[in-house]
Amino acid sequence: MKVIKGCDVVYGFSFDMEEKYRVSPGEEFLVETNDCFYQQIQNEDELIENLDHGAFNPATGPIYVEGARAGDVLKVKIKKIEVDSKGCSLTIPDAGFLPDRVSQALTKIIEIKDDFAIFSDDIKIPIRPMIGVIGVATRKEDGLIATDTPFRHGGNMDTTDITQGTTLYLPVAVDGAMLALGDLHAVMGDGEVCVTGLEIPGKVTLEIEIIKNKKIAWPILESKDSIQVIASDPNLEKASRLALLEMIRILEKSKSLSFEEAYILSSLAVDMKISQLVNPNKTARAAISKDIIDTKTLFEKL
Amino acid sequence: MKVIKGCDVVYGFSFDMEEKYRVSPGEEFLVETNDCFYQQIQNEDELIENLDHGAFNPATGPIYVEGARAGDVLKVKIKKIEVDSKGCSLTIPDAGFLPDRVSQALTKIIEIKDDFAIFSDDIKIPIRPMIGVIGVATRKEDGLIATDTPFRHGGNMDTTDITQGTTLYLPVAVDGAMLALGDLHAVMGDGEVCVTGLEIPGKVTLEIEIIKNKKIAWPILESKDSIQVIASDPNLEKASRLALLEMIRILEKSKSLSFEEAYILSSLAVDMKISQLVNPNKTARAAISKDIIDTKTLFEKL
Repeated sequence: MKVIKGCDVVYGFSFDMEEKYRVSPGEEFLVETNDCFYQQIQNEDELIENLDHGAFNPATGPIYVEGARAGDVLKVKIKKIEVDSKGCSLTIPDAGFLPDRVSQALTKIIEIKDDFAIFSDDIKIPIRPMIGVIGVATRKEDGLIATDTPFRHGGNMDTTDITQGTTLYLPVAVDGAMLALGDLHAVMGDGEVCVTGLEIPGKVTLEIEIIKNKKIAWPILESKDSIQVIASDPNLEKASRLALLEMIRILEKSKSLSFEEAYILSSLAVDMKISQLVNPNKTARAAISKDIIDTKTLFEKL
Repeated sequence: MKVIKGCDVVYGFSFDMEEKYRVSPGEEFLVETNDCFYQQIQNEDELIENLDHGAFNPATGPIYVEGARAGDVLKVKIKKIEVDSKGCSLTIPDAGFLPDRVSQALTKIIEIKDDFAIFSDDIKIPIRPMIGVIGVATRKEDGLIATDTPFRHGGNMDTTDITQGTTLYLPVAVDGAMLALGDLHAVMGDGEVCVTGLEIPGKVTLEIEIIKNKKIAWPILESKDSIQVIASDPNLEKASRLALLEMIRILEKSKSLSFEEAYILSSLAVDMKISQLVNPNKTARAAISKDIIDTKTLFEKL
């Protein structure tokens, strides 16, 4: 299996990303990923102010996908996520969702044993590995977007459902798409409230397909049970609104509904969810059960 | 079984609510509830501007609970929710989460068949009946709070998980607690984006216990798998923050953690969720798995 090496990283997504690797649709390949601190935190005495902040949030890639053209949709199947045997999580004064409440920097090194994160002797959290950063080249008008920020191209969406067994659909802005990813979390709650998940290096096995000539405004995630639009904005309510508007557009098209009908259907059957509350853009998603809409119809009618 | 009649309703929660019914802890009783329009919408030609808005959002009660004293916690077990065979859902211009996008009032009467809401010939939504409004008398300093508004006493929380088989914990502000409830939805998505769920009359079977002398800042919900703090504020991020702060307080107390430790634990294991985005106060919740905390320990240590 082709291996995309963790030493080849980018710190931003842009229109003019340069190919480092090349894969073909249908080919399984493995991506090595660094943790969001590039492994600079190895013990609990490490002070965040002494680290090289320039190395934070590396994303492995870019990966040129054969046959992907601007205006297509990249279908990224997440076949497997493997994480290392320990990671870290920390509070950073003035950061996170409660910046005014955190006066103390605390670093916790957390081991993984038998698929549990050992937070303490009596608190063991079942792990659920996920990809924090995954995206493609941006549209020219969106410029360079740092890997700490989520937007239309994907990026730092920190969405718990971007996990093994799910499929992510990303809008292709340039030929080859230029996929890059990193920032795995062994586990994270929706919100990522303290600003870190359980940050950990790992390996991700992917397979890609291309859906030709389809327009999506935001990344779409397909889990076992649901279809989710993932949108990001500095304001959480605005992010929620953007996700909902795209979901309503999808329902109008795929179910031949008026705006008002799709709006009522959303009120009954769409769950508005929080992905993360702590990045430069916050991320929300609008999720609907696959009992009501399937991805095949969705992309046929879009 | 004692029946609390749907003709006895209130339109606000306050410090000086007067008892209409009386129940004892451990006694099962049945509460009849009206839909949020007091059944004024019986066909799709009904225009919302022609209805008596003063009759909107009735809550059945108040119910005096024997032995409940200010400073206690009311433990409300939701044993059963039965809904009628049809309900309604509508768009209201200038209302809901996308008020600027709705130009047209649309009313849909929706039948329930074999536990599905028949939205159209090809869209059938599995029902999941829930209680929209449920609350107790308010603290004196909070004054009169209309039944359309959620706050510390409960009220119009429109939370999908307030459903059959779950338990709701409410802070008791006055002797007898003065429980009232209504506004069932046969089904609703998190967010309730168009401003209505599937609004429907019904019957709720409850049983109450009293937990003596415990302070909770916000309602707490116990589902099969999780403990959730439910908080409300005009701003969604503020509501999320209030729910998270109470969850962190609970984790600090019940797990003997520092603020920073509880904050990190929340980042890994607490899901921040949206209840509704459309009422005068918006509602968010902070949810943690019962694998990590159980309600017995929670209330012992609070």
